[in-house]
Amino acid sequence: MKPTIFTRGVPPRESLPVDALADCAHQVVLENGPEILQYAPAAGYQPLRELIAQQCSVPAERVLLGQGSLQILDIILHCLLRPGDEVAVEQPTYDRVLTLMRRTGLQIMPVPLQKNGLDLGKLEDDLKNGRNIRLFYVIPDFQNPSGRVMTLEERKELIALSQTYQFTIIEDAPYRKLRYSGEDVISLFDLSPQGVIQLSSFSKLISPGLRVGYAVLPQNLIKVINEYASDTYINPSYLNHAIVYRFIANGYMQDHLAFLKALYAGRLQTMLSALQQQLSGRCTWTQPEGGFFVGLWVDDAMRENIYSKNAEEFGLKLSDGRGFFVTGGENFIRLPFCALQTDEIQDGIQRLSKMLTT
Amino acid sequence: MKPTIFTRGVPPRESLPVDALADCAHQVVLENGPEILQYAPAAGYQPLRELIAQQCSVPAERVLLGQGSLQILDIILHCLLRPGDEVAVEQPTYDRVLTLMRRTGLQIMPVPLQKNGLDLGKLEDDLKNGRNIRLFYVIPDFQNPSGRVMTLEERKELIALSQTYQFTIIEDAPYRKLRYSGEDVISLFDLSPQGVIQLSSFSKLISPGLRVGYAVLPQNLIKVINEYASDTYINPSYLNHAIVYRFIANGYMQDHLAFLKALYAGRLQTMLSALQQQLSGRCTWTQPEGGFFVGLWVDDAMRENIYSKNAEEFGLKLSDGRGFFVTGGENFIRLPFCALQTDEIQDGIQRLSKMLTT
Repeated sequence: MKPTIFTRGVPPRESLPVDALADCAHQVVLENGPEILQYAPAAGYQPLRELIAQQCSVPAERVLLGQGSLQILDIILHCLLRPGDEVAVEQPTYDRVLTLMRRTGLQIMPVPLQKNGLDLGKLEDDLKNGRNIRLFYVIPDFQNPSGRVMTLEERKELIALSQTYQFTIIEDAPYRKLRYSGEDVISLFDLSPQGVIQLSSFSKLISPGLRVGYAVLPQNLIKVINEYASDTYINPSYLNHAIVYRFIANGYMQDHLAFLKALYAGRLQTMLSALQQQLSGRCTWTQPEGGFFVGLWVDDAMRENIYSKNAEEFGLKLSDGRGFFVTGGENFIRLPFCALQTDEIQDGIQRLSKMLTT
Repeated sequence: MKPTIFTRGVPPRESLPVDALADCAHQVVLENGPEILQYAPAAGYQPLRELIAQQCSVPAERVLLGQGSLQILDIILHCLLRPGDEVAVEQPTYDRVLTLMRRTGLQIMPVPLQKNGLDLGKLEDDLKNGRNIRLFYVIPDFQNPSGRVMTLEERKELIALSQTYQFTIIEDAPYRKLRYSGEDVISLFDLSPQGVIQLSSFSKLISPGLRVGYAVLPQNLIKVINEYASDTYINPSYLNHAIVYRFIANGYMQDHLAFLKALYAGRLQTMLSALQQQLSGRCTWTQPEGGFFVGLWVDDAMRENIYSKNAEEFGLKLSDGRGFFVTGGENFIRLPFCALQTDEIQDGIQRLSKMLTT
């Protein structure tokens, strides 16, 4: 039995615009070879910076292009914080960010994501009691791993808290443009363009392998973060930036995004239907309108089955839910749906139901 | 007057094989798109790892490909050392490495490069007296910034010291294949394939902008360094690795290297002749047989002219020699010759002579 792989949140092979990217790669090297094949400033390929700046209504100098957004986050953590500093995250959150924060020696305060939302009340109590949070890392749209979207009220409250208690918000937004139904909620960045660092990337929109991520930085951090990036890797690969720029400038993006949304919307619908059919009343899960993931919370009665059973015997590969939590997570399962065919999703949820309930 | 730029060691525009790289980029995306456009292991594109491994006579698992070799060095420093640890470098050495070491909180012990060679006697005395050097970073071939090649005796002595006193040697070898005359000296890595970490890159051989560097790691460091790399940026861009692989596999490398050597050999010769003509008896300089740089030591009598005069008024842009030194360097000037035309080199050295002697 071929296992259903519910582990990594990767785009499927069929989503990659191979032919268009081959043409873009050829075109940019021929047209801009001497520039993109040379050493260059750390901030990244100027035409792509300008394009992103235009979309965000900021000057291009505020856009830093890198090699994926994770590494930019690493640089930001190094520039803004010292070992022992305290930072906050949603719980659950993106496991790789927890790893980065831990190795930087940061204290991580989890703010629980619950059925009724992000527990900002607890955060406020802690801040009132003198807890010194320096930074809040948050994925407001189709969160990894839960799939949840932060409400407008939560966004406003979080920004108000950041202003009162003087902490930096990092908004990671790689899934934001992958909305399959419903309406956008205004981004934290648009609510507070001077006070929020927005991270995003083209990994989920064009190709992860190109490693093109970016940050929109506040004016006062541009110099220090650019210098740290330059000291680390001189400059990121402009070739990759230029390919992304060319893909957009050639007009491929709009159709490609429509194609991705159509592809993923069906898979999400299949996932939600399968969960309803197999696990209704026995587990709770999010109802995402976009992104890559559904977050599943297993009822306490079945929780021990996650660890006592061997998932592979049931034809499953599962991430360990605890990886997304600072503490706890034993009853959490992340279910990525984008890279699975309809029948794989249906089989996978049936197998999961069997594993959890027998 | 257009200034002569003696600052950065970059390959000239005319050295970049633009058309071949455009074809390689197109070819690799078409042929391997789904692999190189996807997330992947941090170690890098397997065919290029295997090719490098073959050249170094090691198993491919020992080769880590990254995004330039500087960042791999940063990762190695993080994995092997703690703030306060002591490391050694040649003095002068590559300025960016000093920056990395300082920001990692390392104590840097300079080992002077003198007329009669690297002062390993002083290093040995210090080690005997209990100084705990954890790592020695060295550029044995056509060193940046001096252009010097370490003798076989020095190489053997350094390796013997590293074995007696248990420190790691990092051999950075980006210029090694750019020898324009004379014979190769065996690399530190080949003298001690288990005990030396070799770094290199394709920045000086194909294109800096591709950001393809690599390390050949000892067996016991493979896991920890791969994990740190993965935790930092998930994976480097396989597209760039695949382009380099394709460039070599298509057979372009041999001719390209011959072209580079012919181009740079003439420029080096012009530089050495101009120095002989303009500054003989008044300065000393290295006599490199390859690489990118000639290192110039200004006699004490003229030293103050470097700082009291405004180089730009003499039509020059110079690096501050002190950047390559832990202490001192006031009488050192790095002279990169590869990116300058013959007449620019002649004019530049004439201007330098004027600045130093009037």
